[in-house]
Amino acid sequence: MSAVWDLLIVNVHLATMAGEGYGEVRDGAVAVKDGRIAWLGARADAARHGSADEERDGGGCWLTPGLIDCHTHIVHAGNRSDEFEARLNGATYEDIARAGGGIMSTVRATRAASDEELLAQSLPRIASLLAEGVTTIEIKSGYGLDLESERKMLRVARRVGAELPLRVATTFLGAHALPPEYAGRADDYVQAVCEMVPALAAEGLADAVDAFCERIGFSREQTERVFQAAQRHGLPVKLHAEQLSDQGGAELVARYGGLSADHLEHLSESGIAAMAQAGTVAVLLPGAYYFLRDTTPPPVAALRAAGVPMAVSTDNNPGTSPMTSLLLAMNMVCTLWRLTPLEALSGCTIHAARALGLQDEVGSLEVGKRADFALWRIARPADLSYAFGFNPCRAVVNGGVWRQPLLDMASLAAARTSSGG
Amino acid sequence: MSAVWDLLIVNVHLATMAGEGYGEVRDGAVAVKDGRIAWLGARADAARHGSADEERDGGGCWLTPGLIDCHTHIVHAGNRSDEFEARLNGATYEDIARAGGGIMSTVRATRAASDEELLAQSLPRIASLLAEGVTTIEIKSGYGLDLESERKMLRVARRVGAELPLRVATTFLGAHALPPEYAGRADDYVQAVCEMVPALAAEGLADAVDAFCERIGFSREQTERVFQAAQRHGLPVKLHAEQLSDQGGAELVARYGGLSADHLEHLSESGIAAMAQAGTVAVLLPGAYYFLRDTTPPPVAALRAAGVPMAVSTDNNPGTSPMTSLLLAMNMVCTLWRLTPLEALSGCTIHAARALGLQDEVGSLEVGKRADFALWRIARPADLSYAFGFNPCRAVVNGGVWRQPLLDMASLAAARTSSGG
Ligand SMILES: [Zn+2]
Ligand SMILES: [Zn+2]
Repeated sequence: MSAVWDLLIVNVHLATMAGEGYGEVRDGAVAVKDGRIAWLGARADAARHGSADEERDGGGCWLTPGLIDCHTHIVHAGNRSDEFEARLNGATYEDIARAGGGIMSTVRATRAASDEELLAQSLPRIASLLAEGVTTIEIKSGYGLDLESERKMLRVARRVGAELPLRVATTFLGAHALPPEYAGRADDYVQAVCEMVPALAAEGLADAVDAFCERIGFSREQTERVFQAAQRHGLPVKLHAEQLSDQGGAELVARYGGLSADHLEHLSESGIAAMAQAGTVAVLLPGAYYFLRDTTPPPVAALRAAGVPMAVSTDNNPGTSPMTSLLLAMNMVCTLWRLTPLEALSGCTIHAARALGLQDEVGSLEVGKRADFALWRIARPADLSYAFGFNPCRAVVNGGVWRQPLLDMASLAAARTSSGG
Repeated sequence: MSAVWDLLIVNVHLATMAGEGYGEVRDGAVAVKDGRIAWLGARADAARHGSADEERDGGGCWLTPGLIDCHTHIVHAGNRSDEFEARLNGATYEDIARAGGGIMSTVRATRAASDEELLAQSLPRIASLLAEGVTTIEIKSGYGLDLESERKMLRVARRVGAELPLRVATTFLGAHALPPEYAGRADDYVQAVCEMVPALAAEGLADAVDAFCERIGFSREQTERVFQAAQRHGLPVKLHAEQLSDQGGAELVARYGGLSADHLEHLSESGIAAMAQAGTVAVLLPGAYYFLRDTTPPPVAALRAAGVPMAVSTDNNPGTSPMTSLLLAMNMVCTLWRLTPLEALSGCTIHAARALGLQDEVGSLEVGKRADFALWRIARPADLSYAFGFNPCRAVVNGGVWRQPLLDMASLAAARTSSGG
């Protein structure tokens, strides 16, 4: 007996990101039932497997899994372009800190903003990702640094997921920076962070817990206390690790079965081995590397050789990576770090899904996974990494619902009123 | 007696790019008559100067001159993402050349394309610039390399200007590369290029003449022959100079009163002095520097000290800069080369206008200039350089005609049918 589908998309080339290479199916088709992939294969075979209530012509586009941006600080208030300009006009970091700048200016603005203001200020950035075929993003807290403000950030992140055609994974990053009221008392702040975990876990506001393990962040020991709190409350962990120096963070997060270690410019051989053994994903963040004019690339060849999955993300944040294009991040990992276009696309699909623990739900075109797709007017998948500052996205499908890409704030507002995500 | 204007835009902050700094006018207004700027100033003063048939509320946006991309090869056929991918998978430049790749693959595709095909393939790239508030672009030939094919490229460039809300300046770049049929006979080809100039000049297809002066391009002597042909037929010159090595090209183009010398990573002190004296603009092209992983920056501090105006452009081309975002180029010159945000915006407005000889028409908000504007949802002008992979453009005005930014191919198609540029 042949199946009845809700939607059949034809006249597309599939990059399934499952199997060998891109998992290409030329002149393919994909069928959706109840928001999930019910069948996919060669178009010519579709009729033998089922028929659909609705058929869509993909116009010869390439169809990939919807993109996944697996590391963002995209919910925040305020703007640091004034510091950017001051620095280029000769101000030192000390000048800027003395003037109240740096991360604490973002903390002040985020603490002061209402839920509505925080959402309104974040939406244009999120819209930029939506326009590029992004269907899942991770959003971290970490500019609140007290329970009420961290909770507010995570609540707004959940609203993004509820109001927009976007799946949102939230991460509690209380151990992002030391707030001024704890100056000189880092251990006390870490204790406070650990005490925030049960409340946020109980309220269902956090899908994971993260920390910034660095000389200018938190020590390995402090980070481990946060991980223990997460573990006690059933939350998986991830870590900002080895961005500026080797702190052994990758080994630590691997020891806790972490989802990912992120940045990794100063990752050691033993860190790589620990990640490979634990199945911890390496999340590469070229935007910060570029923006900070860093010169030490992450050990891509060694990660590749060890079989550590590499994800790629924008790291959108106002201080070190004010970037809102995942396609640009794909070009950057190829251009700057010599990933292949296949690795770059895997890094924004299947490996990004794994970095969020969502690899059974999204990240590839496989029967049973969510019907989240992006359709691209391109000659071949490598085009997504090759061009930069260019968006060839022509349609997006979220849970089986076909949309034109939301390219402007007006269409975004219309989508907010017409749909929940 | 008070004037009657066609359009008055209020509730905007102006960055006039005339006078000191950004030439800021907070809570300003700008009046348009017959497609040109008739008045501008503080909103509170508008009523004393005139009244308008139509008033538009800019919603608190910043209003700048429409952006100008003054160096592009954006009209071309074919795609080189296959080479990009092959190289990242380990192929050498020799492997790729042996397989028929490199610039000659673009020449073959461009020669084979009809006018319609060439236009259709170029439109998505051009649309990307239009969406970012670009109102003037330069388009070079140089993938035809014979009279008929060069003429076709310039004809298509003229059509872009006629059919889209965009002012187009065309540049004949016959001396871009040596076509295969002239292998080993570079001087003969230069002679052929010189003979193309009168035909293209007579047909009004070229606004300027350019060449690629480089060890892998044409010599200083060959370039000078091209410049002499341009001069005989009344066309201004510009030059791809000192990108890979110091060939003395900047001094040569300055000696011919050239509009601009472009790239300039290996520019000498004497080249800077010659440009300063001749008023030749330095066009900075960070996309190629980034994409080629070049490590020698152009001498920005010395250019600044000498008072040479610096323009900034995408250099959109399939081989060395497949970039279609001028805002990204602005971020790159700040991030990679330490221009200030003011220099970056000047480089895409008033100095870019000068690089095209259009400084009396466009590039700043001054009475009498064309009413070409971009409106931005930003906190301050520095935001345009600070964020990357982000487009805050909310409206565009071309010759006094207000439009939403053309964000997708459908709205672009509608604009093509409803308007000539
Ligand atoms: Zn981060
Ligand atoms: Zn060029």
